[in-house]
Amino acid sequence: MKVIKGGVLAAKGFRGMALSCGIKRSGKPDLALIIADESVPTAAVFTQSSVKAAPVVVTQEHLGDCFSQAIIVNSGNANCFTGEFGLQYANRMAECVSEWIAVEKNDVIVSSTGIIGKQLPIKKIEEAVPKLVKGLARTKEKQIAKAIMTTDTKIKECAVKVKLGGKEVTIGACAKGSGMIEPNMATMLCFITTDADIDVKLLNEALKKAVMETFNCISVDGCMSTNDMVTIMASGQAGNPQIKTRNKDFTDFCEALEHVCLDLAKKIVLDGEGATKFITINVTGATHRDEARIVAKHIANSPLVKTAAFASDQNWGRVVAAVGAAGTKASEKTIKVKFSSFKKKDIAIDVDLGLGKASGTVYTCDLSYEYVKINGEYN
Amino acid sequence: MKVIKGGVLAAKGFRGMALSCGIKRSGKPDLALIIADESVPTAAVFTQSSVKAAPVVVTQEHLGDCFSQAIIVNSGNANCFTGEFGLQYANRMAECVSEWIAVEKNDVIVSSTGIIGKQLPIKKIEEAVPKLVKGLARTKEKQIAKAIMTTDTKIKECAVKVKLGGKEVTIGACAKGSGMIEPNMATMLCFITTDADIDVKLLNEALKKAVMETFNCISVDGCMSTNDMVTIMASGQAGNPQIKTRNKDFTDFCEALEHVCLDLAKKIVLDGEGATKFITINVTGATHRDEARIVAKHIANSPLVKTAAFASDQNWGRVVAAVGAAGTKASEKTIKVKFSSFKKKDIAIDVDLGLGKASGTVYTCDLSYEYVKINGEYN
Repeated sequence: MKVIKGGVLAAKGFRGMALSCGIKRSGKPDLALIIADESVPTAAVFTQSSVKAAPVVVTQEHLGDCFSQAIIVNSGNANCFTGEFGLQYANRMAECVSEWIAVEKNDVIVSSTGIIGKQLPIKKIEEAVPKLVKGLARTKEKQIAKAIMTTDTKIKECAVKVKLGGKEVTIGACAKGSGMIEPNMATMLCFITTDADIDVKLLNEALKKAVMETFNCISVDGCMSTNDMVTIMASGQAGNPQIKTRNKDFTDFCEALEHVCLDLAKKIVLDGEGATKFITINVTGATHRDEARIVAKHIANSPLVKTAAFASDQNWGRVVAAVGAAGTKASEKTIKVKFSSFKKKDIAIDVDLGLGKASGTVYTCDLSYEYVKINGEYN
Repeated sequence: MKVIKGGVLAAKGFRGMALSCGIKRSGKPDLALIIADESVPTAAVFTQSSVKAAPVVVTQEHLGDCFSQAIIVNSGNANCFTGEFGLQYANRMAECVSEWIAVEKNDVIVSSTGIIGKQLPIKKIEEAVPKLVKGLARTKEKQIAKAIMTTDTKIKECAVKVKLGGKEVTIGACAKGSGMIEPNMATMLCFITTDADIDVKLLNEALKKAVMETFNCISVDGCMSTNDMVTIMASGQAGNPQIKTRNKDFTDFCEALEHVCLDLAKKIVLDGEGATKFITINVTGATHRDEARIVAKHIANSPLVKTAAFASDQNWGRVVAAVGAAGTKASEKTIKVKFSSFKKKDIAIDVDLGLGKASGTVYTCDLSYEYVKINGEYN
């Protein structure tokens, strides 16, 4: 496997386009379209929130057959808690795409991110779709990565190449997300494409596994914003022998996919709202993996630990207090804490619970004045 | 029941004293002693953290017989994660009291709050105890309330009078606590005294009930710092007919005690680190009380809701997102949200889940620049 330049259009069989249609008052890009050459196997992971945004509801319906051909995504408005009109508008987004290019309406993935509770300015989207279709190209991936940003300060892309059955296979992706103090509240979107030829059930298995080990490790209780979505479309154009079993090719594919997801997950943390430090929390000595992760997330979500990191204050008492509150059997007699210097930009917090042999890692960032500022003045 | 002036020494049968013994570098008061005239029925509620501070361990032992006569409490150092020495020092604090005044060592409640992981300067405490004993008086309650403060900016006291069986009974208390963004991390101490004559089992029942409805409603997952402690000592000197059953006197006593606890709980929220707003979150339409509280706490602990409150930004999308993430069945179709103006100092957020008939209330404050500052520069 090797990392290459590029993003969501790196793999063969995909084109895209992005522009500003006027949803964002700032005039920044806010609408993107990604198209596969044909309807292709697709897997997805969605928010587990009981309040699901309209585009999530529509996309879940459309992906009932595990196939799709296009993604239309807007930023600046989440189309969430928008009632019947919200659902109509999310459906209309898919319909528009199918009116202007030969794609079935239910082969369109619809996605939105931004403010909750405001109706989508659907007219602006309707008017922009023909322009999106006209501009489709393999070179527009940076524009797409930009058009899905909200409070993000940097575009987030990753692409890798991996040899499967003697053929070169590419996986590319873009992502957005940056509200890192309690990531379950910040919408996280990630669109992945690959030219691998892979059975859709295994594609689904690979994606679920990768998300569990990466995006879910920067997030509490899974992906819990109203709009979270990770999708992967597989064009099969790499010409590799189709992956039909959990063979070596499948393992290599999973590894490459996990690399892409972990890279983007880390980029999301690094772009955390107001973040000045990157914190890796590694919990060992747990009785099982879930326990390790729960403890690591308790530490990651402690504002006291986060503010201490911001102030370069090596306050392990706050780490111990967070461990104690996580509901395990770990006590003063079993817990060991180790730190790297808090003065550096990269901080490692290692906690040995002294209970068992399982471990887990969670990534987070510090809590700064800037976080309060960004979230106090957002839109 | 009527509210009166006063605090932890308002009830008959108690004296106290406080001073600065040099634990706090600032030279502010950091040591206090409260003494009952004799060994009296006592109830207590402790942190449920798996990491318990030494004074909590010692006090739990001492209260095995449900009787106590004295409280010695220091601020500036939590005596937590301090190993064998920490336990020795906590024991030594109790011993010192029994050396200088006629109190059994195991009738002494020991309590500490402050930084975790530093050894207690026990010599300073040993030297100060005779001065504390010498200064004991019924007039020192404000000094005691001051000596238990850490990042608190105001002393927190409350006292009430209630007629029980024709006699006037007094309940008085002081409390500390102020780290409100995730209250499970902030040590909360509350010392209550009363001159009521009440069976110790019923005293315990009354305290547990009061804490559940008050202090636990400003806190996540119960009292989860390493040092949390709420105690009540009952001198019986009011001369009321002893409360032995769940009669009218008991109900009136419970109501008065809950009033004291709620008043102090609200004062803790109002003194939240960097707090500029007081937020009351009232969740109705839940299937059961626990569900209502879990949802209310999810909202209360959302930094996005807290920063919105700070910025007077009536962002109900963030409230809805927090409700969605709480793991209930409430959806866009069932949820109703109502706000008071976010521009005022007192904010009410009412959420109807539309699922059932149970309700619950949680109190919190906003998240300001000041919070980051206080916690970045603490001690």
